[in-house]
Amino acid sequence: MSKAPVRGFPEAEFAARTQKAQTLMAQQGLDGLLLLTEPDVRYFSGFHTLFWQSPTRPWFLFVPPAGKPVAIIPEIGADLMRRTWIGDIRTWSAPAPEDDGISLLTELLSPIAGRGGTVGIMKGHETALRMPLGDFERLIGGLPGLNIADATLLVRSLRMVKSAAEIEKLSHICGIGSRTFAQVPQFAHEGQPFEDLFRAFRREALTQGADDVPYLVGGAEQGGYSDVISPPTGRPLQAGDIVMLDTGSTWDGYFCDFDRNFAIGRADDLSRRAYDVLWRATEAGIAAARPGATCRDLFQAMQSVIAEMDGQGGDVGRLGHGLGMQLTEWPSHAAFDGTVIEENMVLTLEPSLGYGDGKIMVHEENIVVRADGADLLTTRAAPELPVI
Amino acid sequence: MSKAPVRGFPEAEFAARTQKAQTLMAQQGLDGLLLLTEPDVRYFSGFHTLFWQSPTRPWFLFVPPAGKPVAIIPEIGADLMRRTWIGDIRTWSAPAPEDDGISLLTELLSPIAGRGGTVGIMKGHETALRMPLGDFERLIGGLPGLNIADATLLVRSLRMVKSAAEIEKLSHICGIGSRTFAQVPQFAHEGQPFEDLFRAFRREALTQGADDVPYLVGGAEQGGYSDVISPPTGRPLQAGDIVMLDTGSTWDGYFCDFDRNFAIGRADDLSRRAYDVLWRATEAGIAAARPGATCRDLFQAMQSVIAEMDGQGGDVGRLGHGLGMQLTEWPSHAAFDGTVIEENMVLTLEPSLGYGDGKIMVHEENIVVRADGADLLTTRAAPELPVI
Repeated sequence: MSKAPVRGFPEAEFAARTQKAQTLMAQQGLDGLLLLTEPDVRYFSGFHTLFWQSPTRPWFLFVPPAGKPVAIIPEIGADLMRRTWIGDIRTWSAPAPEDDGISLLTELLSPIAGRGGTVGIMKGHETALRMPLGDFERLIGGLPGLNIADATLLVRSLRMVKSAAEIEKLSHICGIGSRTFAQVPQFAHEGQPFEDLFRAFRREALTQGADDVPYLVGGAEQGGYSDVISPPTGRPLQAGDIVMLDTGSTWDGYFCDFDRNFAIGRADDLSRRAYDVLWRATEAGIAAARPGATCRDLFQAMQSVIAEMDGQGGDVGRLGHGLGMQLTEWPSHAAFDGTVIEENMVLTLEPSLGYGDGKIMVHEENIVVRADGADLLTTRAAPELPVI
Repeated sequence: MSKAPVRGFPEAEFAARTQKAQTLMAQQGLDGLLLLTEPDVRYFSGFHTLFWQSPTRPWFLFVPPAGKPVAIIPEIGADLMRRTWIGDIRTWSAPAPEDDGISLLTELLSPIAGRGGTVGIMKGHETALRMPLGDFERLIGGLPGLNIADATLLVRSLRMVKSAAEIEKLSHICGIGSRTFAQVPQFAHEGQPFEDLFRAFRREALTQGADDVPYLVGGAEQGGYSDVISPPTGRPLQAGDIVMLDTGSTWDGYFCDFDRNFAIGRADDLSRRAYDVLWRATEAGIAAARPGATCRDLFQAMQSVIAEMDGQGGDVGRLGHGLGMQLTEWPSHAAFDGTVIEENMVLTLEPSLGYGDGKIMVHEENIVVRADGADLLTTRAAPELPVI
């Protein structure tokens, strides 16, 4: 196990994130940001708990035009929030279906509403409203004069570019994932129920130092898999299977997200060819991932190699994405995404193709973009389909 | 490892769930249900994947007044959805920020809007809007005449009462959790960094047969912990620590949710007393959990014992909740919840109290309510605080 970085972040990191947000808020005429989701609340506060798994209680963080954010949270989280840099923590005894934070929020936002001000919330692509819609409607209905703006692009522009400390965490979990995949040939074998391989993989990732393995999907079928998002079945691995495992493991709240492909006993020619094409598509993606290029450029660099074997483009919708506090983050390597790649973005390269009779293959690596090009965070996949 | 039940459900189970929903929809004048979240989509379709971890793509399931549900989903999920009982699967290549399913939904809902019909969505307590709010506003704005009703109570009434097959899965994962906790004294020890105990617990749960351990929180401090939702620190366990571990482990998409308390080396008198009070509060909850009682009754049965030591009621907000496809589900054992307990509800009993200088203790067991009272799904906690 390699030495782990320090957990958490110094207060200066949260102060810098908040100040950057406040600069953009001033430019865009926002009188506050109201954040509701686990990653957004954690990004500005450092509040880190798996308790978000419970859908029962809403949590709110308000970023004012100046000064520290204000937390409006269930009392059960007060002790943990007091350990962050947040000073102004307002709580209620939740759950309280009649008033789950609404009157506290109304009190906070009323002065802004009174002067016809504007609050930004996340309502754009890749977001969700992490509170009851009925409560949201009641909140807004009780604040006549309040304007709501979409703050998705603002928050996205901050979160897409990682700090040195974030990159250190991401590099650490990518290393753990790489060492876990390196062990797969030791614990995967013909006759093994696929679900047992999943359990063995999770156990190995924990042994290698992962905090958790919240995401593990895969496929295993004769001559190639047809699906890339399934949980495992009890079907035993057979000679001639192509096996794919794709993990989102975490360390200190940061994800790796990559996969590896293996053949059991023997590899068929078509799968070997698909593997080679995707390996070279990934190389093209690595070469294209430089500051100033767009996500569309990255997409096209990979797609031009994929087209050797599959001109249709597949049905995955994109060939990679941002990576950080979530398994998938903005941007998308897709024809629709003109986002300009910047130094210190952490990205996945995830070329895929359809082949044979309804088969699909996916490769994936994780990179950080530096001034002079991409650095791999993952140990590069073998250039030829490994046979177990 | 005990023999696992069969994975998945027969088609008849989904048909029965759908028909029950449709009966209630007819009574309430609903022309359809539009479902957006992982558990709601899975409940009516059987669509089961960890891919929901990625926030990028919305997923939609529409329950019509008669017949099978209709899936409107990203193409990447089509192969997996085709393995369920759903026949009508409409897909688009997602992500597509300009039209992430909105035109497909508009096409589906236009006839209902045209006749001034009503569609139910989940907008009440313990729900979230699992799609971009901007897209939702655009969808509704494009369907003049469409009425939106809150379907939370409808879906809640179905999901709160479990089928025999669901109870079998819940019993299986509660058994796995119980056997894992039984091993804690074997792998927990003084000097062990708390985060290493978390890793050891996860590994043991997997060994015992859990598919995953998506939720594991705890506390470990001298003479009692002060927080019950934290991730672990690297602090080594010390003699005199009171340690609590609370897990939501899963099998085939169903959760256990319970905790256990331990003392390291020695237990202080106050913590032993808190443990005894909570153990007896749980007994009172078990005795009170009968069909016809309300969640308020359950709350009061436990609270009357807790009051021996803590009259304030603590800050957790409730003393247990429903359990199933989510770590926490409706109802809540709280003064505000008059839900009548029914046969085949699966519930947690989770009494807690504050004591000493800012300490808190929590106990938790999982039960299924039968005609003649509660059956434990978890192996009952020891009546006295175990010392490791």
